[in-house]
Parts: sequence; structure tokens; C-alpha cells
Amino acid sequence: MHESQSLNSSVLARNVEMSDEYTEQVKRVLDILTFNDDGLIPAIAQQFDTGEVLMMGWMNRDAVEATLTEMRGIYWSRSRNALWRKGDSSGQIQVLKELRWDCDHDTILLQVDQTGVACHTGRRNCFFYAVRDGQIATIAKIKTDPDILFGK
Amino acid sequence: MHESQSLNSSVLARNVEMSDEYTEQVKRVLDILTFNDDGLIPAIAQQFDTGEVLMMGWMNRDAVEATLTEMRGIYWSRSRNALWRKGDSSGQIQVLKELRWDCDHDTILLQVDQTGVACHTGRRNCFFYAVRDGQIATIAKIKTDPDILFGK
Repeated sequence: MHESQSLNSSVLARNVEMSDEYTEQVKRVLDILTFNDDGLIPAIAQQFDTGEVLMMGWMNRDAVEATLTEMRGIYWSRSRNALWRKGDSSGQIQVLKELRWDCDHDTILLQVDQTGVACHTGRRNCFFYAVRDGQIATIAKIKTDPDILFGK
Repeated sequence: MHESQSLNSSVLARNVEMSDEYTEQVKRVLDILTFNDDGLIPAIAQQFDTGEVLMMGWMNRDAVEATLTEMRGIYWSRSRNALWRKGDSSGQIQVLKELRWDCDHDTILLQVDQTGVACHTGRRNCFFYAVRDGQIATIAKIKTDPDILFGK
């Protein structure tokens, strides 16, 4: 709870500091990006310094705006039909280093600094299944027990 | 043309060598993966040794099967409504090192060795737009003239 409170305070401070010019740039980004028929765009999160691909989520316009405003990974949860401020329940937040997008304007690549683990299974990244040596394999170990992550 | 012929020969050789057991594993992967209402799944391509995220494409079941069989990046072109053997016209193929997927079974991460450039604009990767220092910026230069890539 304390962590969440201090996070909100710093976010508030950052919002207040946001210049009109930056707000204008964020609006331009929202106009440039192509959202699909459901109003969503895929967003890949990559650890900025190691290059590790952590996860892929979906964003609507509000999620892109919130990500660029609060400078952390914020997605649209298709299962809960709500903004998903990643890390609010688990503490495993993604501090945004840079938001990028592709030639077709229809995919986002976030450069983030991932606190702890990105995957809800407790693994560092979500891509832990592979075809390796001709066999289906689980290629990453659990780093943090999900029961601890979600305080069960 | 020569390159394409030699590629096809090596692919053919590999197909012939494929064991029944491997074919069985490919079928299992197809059963595990979740395709969306359009029968597609997003596939991120990452340069296997540097970690550079090159592009994101879409695959249907045939594309996943072809990728795992021919050991190169093969996608579904939503604009052309056809299999897209990346590199067939540009020569910029992606040799598959490993196919991975995520905890939800609904996103693929390809580890590839990209020949030349991944982006049709002639840039090494497709994610060359960014919000940097509060401004929208183009952060990568063209490495190969697209006219040369596509033989115009």
C-alpha cells in the first residue's frame, strides 16, 4: 500500500510538470497510431538494457496516453475490460524508458525497466515455451512464487 | 533467382529429413496455440544474438506450420490474403533459430537470424519512430534503398 501511495504521488508530480508541448506531442502520437476494429493496438514490452522481450499486451487510446503521461507500462485488459496499470497488484511495474512504434503505425514497442518479473506465472518473461531440439520445452524457471506476487 | 532456387533445394532436403516425431510436435504446437477470431496469432521476430526486435507479423495455422517446417519466418499477409514467405522478393529472409510462445499461448516470439534488413523501408528493424526527449523522432536510418531491395 505504501509503495502504491508513493507511486501515485510521483505520478501526480509528473503530471503537474507536463508541459503543454508534451501534451500536444502525445495527442499527435495518438493521431498517428492505427488502432484495430476493437480500438486496440499491440504493445511489445522489451527490457531496455538487455533486449529481453518481456511480454505483449494490448493498448487502447487511453492506455497509450496513460503510458506516455505516467511513464509506466499501462495496458488495456481485454479480459477485465479495463485499464491495467501493470504492477498495481503485484508491484512488478514497468518504468517507461521510451515508446516506439513501427513503419505501419500499428504496433508499439515499449522500452521499459521491468521491476521483478513480467509474467504472472512468476517468470521473468512470458515467452517460456519453445520448440527446442525438436521437442516442446519449458525454457525458463519460476523466479517468484505467484502466491507471493499476488499476496495470497 | 539462383538464391531462391538454392533456398528451395535446402528446404526440400529439410522437409524430406523431417521425422514423424517432429511432424507430431508441430501438430501439438498448432493445437496448443490460440488463434484469434480471424484465425491469426501475432508473431514477434527478434534477432537471436543481439536481442533487436525486428518486426511483428501475423501467422495463421499454415504460416506456423510452414515456419516450423521450412525453418524460416513465414507469415500471413493480411493485405494480400496469402502466405508471405518473408524475403522471397527482397532476399531478406529470416532463418529460424527457435520458435517460442507465451504463457497465454496467444503470442509467438521467433528467434531469427535476419538477412540484411527486416523493414520494407530499408531499415534494419520496423520500430524506428519514437517519442524521444518529448518529441516525435525517427531514430533509425535507411540501410538499404528499398528500390534496390525490391529490384525496381
